[in-house]
Amino acid sequence: MMVFGNMGADSGTGVAFTRNQVTGAKELYGEYLPNAQGEDVVAGTRTPLKIAALRGDAPELYSNLAQVADRLEKHFREAQDIEFTVERGALWMLQTRAAKPPARATVRIALDMVREGLITKDEALLRVEPDHVIHLLLPQFDDKAKSEAKRSGRFLAKGLNASPGAAMGTVVFDPDEAEKLGRDERKPVILVRVETSPDDVHGVLHSKGVLTARGGATSHAAVVTRGLGIPCVAGCEAIQVDYDAAEFRVGDKVVRRGDSLSIDGGTGEVFAGSIRTIEPDFDREVDLQNLLAWADEVRSLQVWANADYPRDAVRARKFGAQGIGLDRTEHMFMETDRLPIVHEMILAAPEYRKVKRQREAAAKQLEAATNDRRRDLERQIAEMDSHLEDLSRRYIGSLEHLGRMQREDFAGILREMAGLPVIIRLIDPPLHEFLPRYETLLVQVTKLRIAREDPDAFIRAATSEEDRALIAEVRKAGSDVATGIEALLPRKERLLEAVKGSRETNPMLGLRGCRLGIMFPEITEMQVRAIFEAACRLKKEGVDVRPEIMIPLVGLPEELRIERHALEKEAKSVMDREGISVDYKFGTMIEIPRAALVADEIARHAEFFSFGTNDLTQTTMGYSRDDAEPKFLLDYIEQGILPRNPFQTIDREGVGQLMRMCVQKGRKVRRNLEVGICGEHGGDPVSIEFCHEIGLNYVSCSPFRVPVARLAAAHAKLRQGTTRAKDT
Amino acid sequence: MMVFGNMGADSGTGVAFTRNQVTGAKELYGEYLPNAQGEDVVAGTRTPLKIAALRGDAPELYSNLAQVADRLEKHFREAQDIEFTVERGALWMLQTRAAKPPARATVRIALDMVREGLITKDEALLRVEPDHVIHLLLPQFDDKAKSEAKRSGRFLAKGLNASPGAAMGTVVFDPDEAEKLGRDERKPVILVRVETSPDDVHGVLHSKGVLTARGGATSHAAVVTRGLGIPCVAGCEAIQVDYDAAEFRVGDKVVRRGDSLSIDGGTGEVFAGSIRTIEPDFDREVDLQNLLAWADEVRSLQVWANADYPRDAVRARKFGAQGIGLDRTEHMFMETDRLPIVHEMILAAPEYRKVKRQREAAAKQLEAATNDRRRDLERQIAEMDSHLEDLSRRYIGSLEHLGRMQREDFAGILREMAGLPVIIRLIDPPLHEFLPRYETLLVQVTKLRIAREDPDAFIRAATSEEDRALIAEVRKAGSDVATGIEALLPRKERLLEAVKGSRETNPMLGLRGCRLGIMFPEITEMQVRAIFEAACRLKKEGVDVRPEIMIPLVGLPEELRIERHALEKEAKSVMDREGISVDYKFGTMIEIPRAALVADEIARHAEFFSFGTNDLTQTTMGYSRDDAEPKFLLDYIEQGILPRNPFQTIDREGVGQLMRMCVQKGRKVRRNLEVGICGEHGGDPVSIEFCHEIGLNYVSCSPFRVPVARLAAAHAKLRQGTTRAKDT
Repeated sequence: MMVFGNMGADSGTGVAFTRNQVTGAKELYGEYLPNAQGEDVVAGTRTPLKIAALRGDAPELYSNLAQVADRLEKHFREAQDIEFTVERGALWMLQTRAAKPPARATVRIALDMVREGLITKDEALLRVEPDHVIHLLLPQFDDKAKSEAKRSGRFLAKGLNASPGAAMGTVVFDPDEAEKLGRDERKPVILVRVETSPDDVHGVLHSKGVLTARGGATSHAAVVTRGLGIPCVAGCEAIQVDYDAAEFRVGDKVVRRGDSLSIDGGTGEVFAGSIRTIEPDFDREVDLQNLLAWADEVRSLQVWANADYPRDAVRARKFGAQGIGLDRTEHMFMETDRLPIVHEMILAAPEYRKVKRQREAAAKQLEAATNDRRRDLERQIAEMDSHLEDLSRRYIGSLEHLGRMQREDFAGILREMAGLPVIIRLIDPPLHEFLPRYETLLVQVTKLRIAREDPDAFIRAATSEEDRALIAEVRKAGSDVATGIEALLPRKERLLEAVKGSRETNPMLGLRGCRLGIMFPEITEMQVRAIFEAACRLKKEGVDVRPEIMIPLVGLPEELRIERHALEKEAKSVMDREGISVDYKFGTMIEIPRAALVADEIARHAEFFSFGTNDLTQTTMGYSRDDAEPKFLLDYIEQGILPRNPFQTIDREGVGQLMRMCVQKGRKVRRNLEVGICGEHGGDPVSIEFCHEIGLNYVSCSPFRVPVARLAAAHAKLRQGTTRAKDT
Repeated sequence: MMVFGNMGADSGTGVAFTRNQVTGAKELYGEYLPNAQGEDVVAGTRTPLKIAALRGDAPELYSNLAQVADRLEKHFREAQDIEFTVERGALWMLQTRAAKPPARATVRIALDMVREGLITKDEALLRVEPDHVIHLLLPQFDDKAKSEAKRSGRFLAKGLNASPGAAMGTVVFDPDEAEKLGRDERKPVILVRVETSPDDVHGVLHSKGVLTARGGATSHAAVVTRGLGIPCVAGCEAIQVDYDAAEFRVGDKVVRRGDSLSIDGGTGEVFAGSIRTIEPDFDREVDLQNLLAWADEVRSLQVWANADYPRDAVRARKFGAQGIGLDRTEHMFMETDRLPIVHEMILAAPEYRKVKRQREAAAKQLEAATNDRRRDLERQIAEMDSHLEDLSRRYIGSLEHLGRMQREDFAGILREMAGLPVIIRLIDPPLHEFLPRYETLLVQVTKLRIAREDPDAFIRAATSEEDRALIAEVRKAGSDVATGIEALLPRKERLLEAVKGSRETNPMLGLRGCRLGIMFPEITEMQVRAIFEAACRLKKEGVDVRPEIMIPLVGLPEELRIERHALEKEAKSVMDREGISVDYKFGTMIEIPRAALVADEIARHAEFFSFGTNDLTQTTMGYSRDDAEPKFLLDYIEQGILPRNPFQTIDREGVGQLMRMCVQKGRKVRRNLEVGICGEHGGDPVSIEFCHEIGLNYVSCSPFRVPVARLAAAHAKLRQGTTRAKDT
């Protein structure tokens, strides 16, 4: 039977939510259009009233509606989204369904309903999705600044809220340019396209935000940006993109390449110019904190954070991290003031190693040598010793210098994390990552060789920024250009040779991780010394330090045995010297398939395992992430060959199978083996569920993701089937 | 009780073998020194007599000795190495042990003993080691040429026969120079060192042979070269190496850097100059062939060969291969006359793909477009069509050209292998491997940009070979240098950009294998068309063709399903057109861990699996072979961290565990799944034993290794415990 809302002033139609959709407060919320049918509301030709207005205008109707709303909510035990019509004063309910309010309201409603006794804490936890937490912790445009932008006519259009977060940057239409500006010049860019295709991905990867004129929630742009965590407004049909003119129009407004643009991927709004962004403030999210406290009671999986600096550790603790799962020490090498020392160290290391071995061989020969040969050998050894002295000054000297700096780094992070474990990973990347790029040096040497023939022409021909930088280097190297070139060229040539010698075909699978520590033990020994010096001194101050040393890229049990043996010796010698003993653990990353396959053997030498799922995914699936994502992986996802990006969500069938096997084998040998994950996956809710399922002790993720992980870990536990009494 | 051989003319001492140690003939062989003790023989001051001489000189003694020898041999059922002393006419046996004759004699003795009824065929097979077969099939110096070299005083010294095979080349003392000459200039070099260390490995890798002055059978040089299959004479104490003078001396003879040198790693001999080498001739090894025929009766593991060209297939069949396990089609792209076509194809492919996708998107939009937009889209589509026509000429046109060439390649190999399976692997390496090197282009473009400012100076300054080659290119491009630069530079710049765009950080794990076929389906379709056109035409001629199409680098079942679907369609269309049907199989390589982990799912779409154990070892262990071997892997072996090189012998604990799992999972879904191995490991006896153990159908190795594999496969079966009756 039809009811009619357009039968006069005592008729009408409306939509009501049983709770406020913005704040989550327990009050009727919605709109009412008197003397109208549903289609009039949709048509938008008349402005509807706020539901609250009915309280004064039609108190009886309001009270009726409130009663029905309350009954519906109690029946369904969920906030409701109701459609109703009033026909000549009689209230008719057309439809009711669960309301899907935004993040902040969802959290508040869940909490209120527990207080009201409508739902249990467990139910409340399950009502809030990890995505809600992500939303609450994403940067947002400042409300005032946004209103101000609207008032001043800078609001351009509204598209689909395809991937959440606020972003500002320079408008770019060409993916190549986006890549160039975003990656090479580190400028924030907003990539604007009619729509995106896999050929644009290299540009998307290096943009702060993406705006497209066409495409829905499952369009290429939407899928890719959500996958990458880049804000995106898609299908913004109001904009007219003109690639040839490098501009887009909205009515008579024109936005050109190079202009500033702001997009809100959470609301779909697009603004000209820049808008002040407010960073999320966890301290002010009291409701969320309460909810997460319940999550903490439920979950069995711990949540740790990845942090390289004391400031990260502070944030991690604030967000509720129960430890540091990954402190990457190589970041400490990369700082501008340390790089020259690191260069010196790396350039001297291979030569030091070579001469040291030759000296050992010569000393061995000396034992059995005849007189003639003995004199010869003694002369050689003396020469090698003098060479070694020089090399040692450069290699060991630089290492000691770095060690003093690293000690302060470690002290900072251990102090912030007092009482909680801190897993410090020893140096991992190939050494050439710290050196200048080969191609840059090659071009410089080529230019200097030609310039030597005619220095003036060299200066005349210099046009690019690189040329001017090179000329500046030349001028610094000598009193005039010619002598500068003569001084600089051989230095650059030597550096080029050194960098060439250390280049690798597939650096991901080359001389890195524990292989470095085995080939150049002095480096990892320095790191361990710095860790224990810091730990001992803090402990003397009364700080409860809990360092755990992690050796990366182990694939052979023997690698770990040897490394651990050498490094524990170093640790003990520091503790003896400092006269204090510190509790510590030694463990390893599991990041290549072989490590998972022989986890039982490795567990004999490891007190903990930490899955490095980025590398484990790369090796198990045979993907170099840097190459795969722009070249075929996102295409695979679009074509449905892969259900999702395995670098964001663990590939259960492949990588996950290895992880499960690894945990079982490891615990068979060492029952109390501590197992965690420190890859990016540690902050992904679907992956967290899997980590819970296979029995990990903790997930470690970026500090920012810790709250998400706390909720996801509770979900994993609850979905596992464990039920809790309503009153706990 | 002591016996004395120095009691006068009727006393003496000797060493006898019950069979000839060189030929294996059934006759006493050895040496006798009258009136002497053992130490006199060792001292080498008197020349002993041949045992055969005793037959005339002391017939009774000889006959006594022969009788005892015969009895000992019958007792031990093995050729004996006997020490004896004659004291005043009485024969005393001091010791007897199994003789260890060289390869040729070992084979003959084993065969003879079966004929004599002393041992079974199975025992005979087990008496011959795979290493014996390797020796018989290694290049050797021509006996006459060697004698001639000795007569003319070119014999220099004898060292330890550390790694078998004959090698000739230019003397080099510096590993860097060995690498440069051997790798970059492809010259044969012999690296001469006092001894080698891990720092020399990059030079060893690119040498034809290695000679060291010091070190035994387990020295670094010996271990490394045996591992790499490079001939080596080690511990040749007679040579005095002087690195500073870049020469070595043997007495008053001097061999300088750049001189020719020949070494025999099987005998330890070193010669100045070059000596004619004879390639092994399998046809003449009748004893070996007989033995291998027995091996064929015993083994259950088939032996196939890897062959890229018809000439390889001919060799493989001669050596007894039962199929081709790997025909790498990309080698067909690398030939000089085809490279320009391949370049054209590769440079046009990405652009073709991009425009084609844009056109598809535009066509879809056209369906729903309003009038204004429609006109706009129609204009765009017309533009894209004209662009596509040009791109298609370059991309598809080049592919068709290549297809006609590949058809002949396939016809050649299928014809040679009539009646036997031929596994053809579709294109595998990343496309940039076919393009010029980025660094070369970068330097050329840098030079040309500067040269444009002052062309004359450019020519004046040119000194290196590369500069002269570049100037030649400039001259070809224009009537004078200036116009030549103007013409050449933009071409080089475009090529540089294209090569830059296709570079990868870790090419081993990038856009290659089946990923190529999915992104650029036209390439693999061309290959399949060429295979089936060749197969259909041969079948019409009455040739029994058995092509098997192998899709590389599969990790996701869906990759294989999609590829197979597209390619079988292509195959059927060729067969329909040719009006004839050919039996074929579709299968995949298993070379990344994930493929082994989900082998059950993959087996649904594959009729065969072939383990690519080189890549599987790289990904499972996280080693890039090119980087690992020179940088740390050989060091690991030396330090005992790894028991052996996993690229030569399968790492059973890690890689092998995955292989075993893969076979089980695959056969669970498809009981008659054909499983083989086509990596280098397929020719390694220890790995072959493992392949037998896990139930592979075949191993496929280089043609040259087929005889070794036939014997090793028989050994694997025999050692498994299956015994055969003596008379079979």
